[in-house]
Amino acid sequence: MSRQMPSSVVIDTTRSANARLRPVPVSAVELTDGFWAPRLRVNREVTLPAQFHYLEETGRLDNFRVAAGKKEGRFVGIYFNDSDVYKWLEAASWVLASGRDPGLEQMVDVAVTEIEAAQQPNGYLNTYFMGERVPERWSNLRDLHELYCAGHLIQAAIAHRRATGSERLLNVACRLADHIDRVFGSQPGKREGTSGHEEIEMALVELGRETGRARYVDLARFFVKMRGQGHAGGDEYHQDHRAFRAFDRVVGHAVRAVYLNAGVADLCLEGDGDEYLPALDRLWHNMTARQTYVTGGIGSRYRGEAFGYDYELPNRRAYAETCAAIGSVMWNWRMLALDGDARYADLLETTLYNGVLAGLSLDGQTYFYQNPLADDGTHRREPWFGCACCPPNLARMLASLPGYVYGVSGEGLWVHLYVEGAATIPLSSGQVLNVSQQTRYPWDGKIAIEVGAGGAYGLFLRIPAWCEAGARLEVNGAPTGSVLAPGTYAELRRNWRAGDRVTLELPMPARRLSCHPYVPNNAGRVALMRGPLVYCAEQVDHLQAAVQDLAVPLDGRLCAEWDPDLLGGVCVLRGEAVASPPGDGWAGHLYRTEGPKTRWGRGHTVPLAAVPYYAWANREPGAMRVWLRKHQPQRPGQRMGNACPPT
Amino acid sequence: MSRQMPSSVVIDTTRSANARLRPVPVSAVELTDGFWAPRLRVNREVTLPAQFHYLEETGRLDNFRVAAGKKEGRFVGIYFNDSDVYKWLEAASWVLASGRDPGLEQMVDVAVTEIEAAQQPNGYLNTYFMGERVPERWSNLRDLHELYCAGHLIQAAIAHRRATGSERLLNVACRLADHIDRVFGSQPGKREGTSGHEEIEMALVELGRETGRARYVDLARFFVKMRGQGHAGGDEYHQDHRAFRAFDRVVGHAVRAVYLNAGVADLCLEGDGDEYLPALDRLWHNMTARQTYVTGGIGSRYRGEAFGYDYELPNRRAYAETCAAIGSVMWNWRMLALDGDARYADLLETTLYNGVLAGLSLDGQTYFYQNPLADDGTHRREPWFGCACCPPNLARMLASLPGYVYGVSGEGLWVHLYVEGAATIPLSSGQVLNVSQQTRYPWDGKIAIEVGAGGAYGLFLRIPAWCEAGARLEVNGAPTGSVLAPGTYAELRRNWRAGDRVTLELPMPARRLSCHPYVPNNAGRVALMRGPLVYCAEQVDHLQAAVQDLAVPLDGRLCAEWDPDLLGGVCVLRGEAVASPPGDGWAGHLYRTEGPKTRWGRGHTVPLAAVPYYAWANREPGAMRVWLRKHQPQRPGQRMGNACPPT
Repeated sequence: MSRQMPSSVVIDTTRSANARLRPVPVSAVELTDGFWAPRLRVNREVTLPAQFHYLEETGRLDNFRVAAGKKEGRFVGIYFNDSDVYKWLEAASWVLASGRDPGLEQMVDVAVTEIEAAQQPNGYLNTYFMGERVPERWSNLRDLHELYCAGHLIQAAIAHRRATGSERLLNVACRLADHIDRVFGSQPGKREGTSGHEEIEMALVELGRETGRARYVDLARFFVKMRGQGHAGGDEYHQDHRAFRAFDRVVGHAVRAVYLNAGVADLCLEGDGDEYLPALDRLWHNMTARQTYVTGGIGSRYRGEAFGYDYELPNRRAYAETCAAIGSVMWNWRMLALDGDARYADLLETTLYNGVLAGLSLDGQTYFYQNPLADDGTHRREPWFGCACCPPNLARMLASLPGYVYGVSGEGLWVHLYVEGAATIPLSSGQVLNVSQQTRYPWDGKIAIEVGAGGAYGLFLRIPAWCEAGARLEVNGAPTGSVLAPGTYAELRRNWRAGDRVTLELPMPARRLSCHPYVPNNAGRVALMRGPLVYCAEQVDHLQAAVQDLAVPLDGRLCAEWDPDLLGGVCVLRGEAVASPPGDGWAGHLYRTEGPKTRWGRGHTVPLAAVPYYAWANREPGAMRVWLRKHQPQRPGQRMGNACPPT
Repeated sequence: MSRQMPSSVVIDTTRSANARLRPVPVSAVELTDGFWAPRLRVNREVTLPAQFHYLEETGRLDNFRVAAGKKEGRFVGIYFNDSDVYKWLEAASWVLASGRDPGLEQMVDVAVTEIEAAQQPNGYLNTYFMGERVPERWSNLRDLHELYCAGHLIQAAIAHRRATGSERLLNVACRLADHIDRVFGSQPGKREGTSGHEEIEMALVELGRETGRARYVDLARFFVKMRGQGHAGGDEYHQDHRAFRAFDRVVGHAVRAVYLNAGVADLCLEGDGDEYLPALDRLWHNMTARQTYVTGGIGSRYRGEAFGYDYELPNRRAYAETCAAIGSVMWNWRMLALDGDARYADLLETTLYNGVLAGLSLDGQTYFYQNPLADDGTHRREPWFGCACCPPNLARMLASLPGYVYGVSGEGLWVHLYVEGAATIPLSSGQVLNVSQQTRYPWDGKIAIEVGAGGAYGLFLRIPAWCEAGARLEVNGAPTGSVLAPGTYAELRRNWRAGDRVTLELPMPARRLSCHPYVPNNAGRVALMRGPLVYCAEQVDHLQAAVQDLAVPLDGRLCAEWDPDLLGGVCVLRGEAVASPPGDGWAGHLYRTEGPKTRWGRGHTVPLAAVPYYAWANREPGAMRVWLRKHQPQRPGQRMGNACPPT
C-alpha cells in the first residue's frame, strides 16, 4: 500500500494525471448547520441501524454466513443482494470517518467479519454463486451483476480503510480484484467481457488510486473498452450498443448509464481524456439539456428504469430513481474534479437538494425508489424494498456529504456547497487551512466565511447558476472586484490574514421556471424554485382547491416565510393562486371542438403555499404538483414585483 | 344444434333476453365503396395468405401436427401461439362468408384438419400442454393463457360454422368447451378458477347462442363471478382485484380488460344486466372520459400494455395496442346491441377508422403493435411479431366488417356505419329488406339510401356525434321532421315504398379538437378531425419546417382536398400553419426563469397539409404529430371561417 495515513476523501485525485481538483477528506469537514447536520445525525442514529436490521432480517448477511459454511442453508433473495451489504458498509464507514460510534462500529465489524469469512481461497466472492451455482460464475455477465457486486465491495473496502485505517476489508477487495484481473483482460489466456450493470469501473480506478497499483486502473480501462462488442447484451439498455467513444446520448438503464459515465470520468482523471472526454461531454449535454427533471432526477421511463426519448419527462409517471440521481451526483463530482467547471457543481447541488433528498423521509426511516413530480397521494415511501438498492445508496450519499463541500487545487480552496460548519483543509502547498462558514443556506443566501490561516492562496466561491442577479461579495466589509457571474466560481486571490472574513450574498427570490417547449407536459406551466430548492404544492396546504386546479399568476408576489414547525423547519413560499377547475363544458368529455366550452372554468383567488419538494409526502397523503399552470396576467404590463418581507 | 341455416352474424342476439339490436349477417352485406371494399380485398388477397405463410413458417401449425403425433418435435414459440391460428381461422371464415375463395378454403381446410387431429380424446386441446407439460394443464390459469386459447378456438369455430355451414370445427370447440365445463365450476367435484387473460367469456356465451346450450353461458357466468378471488393473480393487471360488479374504472392490461367487458356485456345481453350493467357503465364512462385517445386507442401505458392513471395519455409514448382498439370495438358493439345508444356506435366508428386501421399498412403487409400519436420517424410497421396477436386480430376485424354496418330491431333497420354497398337484410318481421347506400363516406358526408322493399318499419340513421351542426335529412327530396341531434339515431318511421330514396347530409368541416385540461401533454394543442377521421401532420409533407414546430391558427381555413394519388386516395386538410421553433434563449437549456427568453421563437407562415392518421408511416420515415400547437390569433375577433371549395 502506498499510503500510511487514512485520508477519508471520497475520491482521491491527489496523483491523478488530469485532475484540477482534489477532494477534501470527509473527516476534515464538520457540518454544524440546521439543514444537513440533523440529517447526518438521523442517518447515523436511525437510518443505518435500521438498514442493518433489514440486512440481517432479510438474510443478506446470512448469505455470507452460508457461503462461509458457518450456517446451513442456501442463498436467499435477489442475486445482487451482496451489494446492499457493501453499500451499507460504505455508508457506515463514511459515518465513522466523521467520528466514533461504538454501536455502528460493532455492526461494521460483524459485516466485515462475515464478508472476510465468505471469500473463497482463490479470491472469488459472491454469495449467490456458491454450491450448485459455482459452475455459473462469470457465465452471465450481462444479467447477474457479478462485477457490479464486486465493485461495491471494492468501494466499501476503500471507504472502510480511509475511515478506519483498517486493511481487513481492503485485503478482501484486493484479493477479489486480483482474481478478476486473472480472469478478465485482453492478454492471452484471459477472457473478454464487461458488466451488464456498470459499477466496477469507478471502483477499480479508485482501488488503483488507493493501492498505487496501476493494474486495477488498466482493468477498469479494459472493461470500458469492451463496451459495444456485445459482451453485455449489445443493446442500449446495457450501454453496450457501440464503443463508448461513439456515445452521443444517454440511453438505457439510468443508474447503469451514470455509473458508467462516472467510471469513465475517473479514467479521464487518470489520463484518458483524449479518448473519452468528447463522448462524456456529449452525454452530459444530452442529459442536462434534454433528459433531466428540474429536480435533477434522471431516467424518466418506468420501463427499464431508463432514459427515454429526448424531452420525455412525464411528471406523474416519472421514474427518476433515487439511485440514478445519486449516480448523477457521483458522475458530476468527477467531472468537476476534472476542470472545476461550476456547471457540474450546479447540477450536483440541484440533484442533491431535490432529486436525491426527496428519496428519504424526514424521519430517515422510509424511502422512495421512484420520484414523481406529480402525484395523487398514492405514492408513499416504504421502509425497505425487495430490490433494496436505494436505501443504502442514500445512506452512503449522506454519510459522505461532508466530503463534497470543498475542493482543493494548486490555486487554493474551492467552496462548492454552502453549509454552516468548520473545516481543516490541507492545501497542496502543505499548508493547513482552517475555514468556517456561517450561513442559513439553503434558506438564506448570506454566507460568511472566515479563514483561519494566513498566506497567499486563492479562494474560489461558487456563484450558483440559480443566482441570476445581485450577488455581492466582500472581504472584511469591502467590495471585491471579483467577477460574480452566475454559474462560475468567483475568484479571490490574495494574501490572506488569519481571521479575514468573506461575506457572500446570494439573493434568493422565488423564481418561476419555464420548461423547454419540446417537453409537452410542461407547456403553459411553471415550477417554483428558491435558491437551490425546487418547490411543490401539496394538497394538505390547499384546503380551498384541488392542487391540479391551481394556476400561478406570473406577476404576483411569492414570499418566503420561515416556519420552524413545518416539516422540520422550512421556508414556505406563500402567494396567491387562481383556482380554476376545468370548465363545465368538460363534464363527461375528453375531447371537444375547440371553442369557448373548452377553456378552464372561472377562477377564484386562493392562498398558495408551496413547500420544498424534498419534503413532500411526509404528511397525510394527498395530491402534489411541481409544475403548476401559469395564470396569464389580466392586465399585461402591471407586474407586482417580488418584494417580500425579510425571512 | 338448434339452427340449420348458417347465418354469418358476428354475434347472434336473436334469442338474447336483453338485446334491443340483432346483428345482420356478414354475408348479407356487400361493400362496394372506395374505402373499405379495397381494404377487404387486400385482406383476402394479401394479408390472410401472408399470415398463413407465417403460421406455417413459425411452427404455429406444426405445433398442432406435433400434438397430433403427425410430426416429430416439440412445441415451439410462445405458449399462446395456438390463438394466432384460431384468430386467423376466424378471419378467413368471415371472408368466406362474403364469398368463395378456393385458395383460402384450402388453407382453412389445412388448419381445421390439423386442429381436429390434435384434439385429445377427452376434448382437451392446447398444443403447448403436450408431452412433458401434460401435468401442467390448468395449473397456471393466471399466466399461461390456456382458457384464452380455448376462447379463440370457440370463436373461430362459430365463425367457421356460420360462414361455411360445416360442423367440423364447431364439434372440436364443443368437445373442448365440454371438457372445460367438466373441470371448472362451482359444483362439487369441479375446480374454481378464472383466466388471467380474458377471452373465453364472450366465446362461451356465443357458443351458447350458437348451440342453444345454456350450460356454456352458465360457464361464462361462472368465470366472471370468479373474478376478485385471487384465481387470476388477485391484481388489477388481470382485472382480478375485486368482484366485477364493484369495478369502477378500467385498469390493468387493456386487451384483457376490454375482452372481459365484452364478455360481461354478452352476459348482460343474456339477462345479467341487473348484476353487471352498472359496473359496465362506470367502466365505459371512465374509459371514454379519461383513458381514451382521440383515435379511440386505449391502454396508454407501455408497462403492462395497460390502462394508466386517469388522463395519462402520452402521445409519443402511447402504447395504444392495435388489439386493444379492436377489443374496444368488440365491447362497444355488444353495448350497442343492448340499447341502441349511438354513443357506442360513435366510439366504435372513431376507433375503427383511426385506432384500429392505423395498425395496418396500406399494402396490407405490415402491422403496428403500438400506435403512438407522435413520433420521430423510428416507429415503423413490421410484417410479423414473436407475439403476433395483432395481425390476425386486424384480419378478423376487417373480414367481419360488413357485419357491423347495419343492425335490426323489432322497430326496423339501423344504419350504424355509412359505406357504399348493398344489403339484403332479414327483419324481425320475417320481411327481407333490400337496402343500398351511395356515398363517398368517410370523404364526403352525403349519403343516399334506397330501400328496396315496401312496408311499415323504421329506419334509424346514425347522426354521428362529430356532426355538430347542419345535418339534413330528406326522403324523396322532402325534408323530414326527424330530430337530427348529434350522437343519436334519427328515426324515420313510415310506410315505405320500394325505391324510396333517403338522403342524409352530414357536413364535414375540418374541426380543431381540444383535449381535457387534465391531460398535461395536450395543453395548448389541437387535433384535427374531419368526419370520423383524425388527421396528423407528417414531416414528408412539410419540407419548410419541422412538424414539432408547427402551430395551427384557430381562425385559419382548413380545406379538404381530394388527392386520388396520395396514400391510396385521401382528402388532405390544407391550410396555413405558423412554423416557430423554440426561441434562441432555449439553446442548451432545459429550464429557464420564466420571461421573454422562454417563449417560442418568431414564426413564419408555411403551408399545412394534414393526412388521415390511419395512413401515417406509409411513406418515408419522418416525424408525425396528431396534436399540434395552437397559434393564438393575432387579431382576436377576426375569424376567417371555414368556407372551402367543394371537395
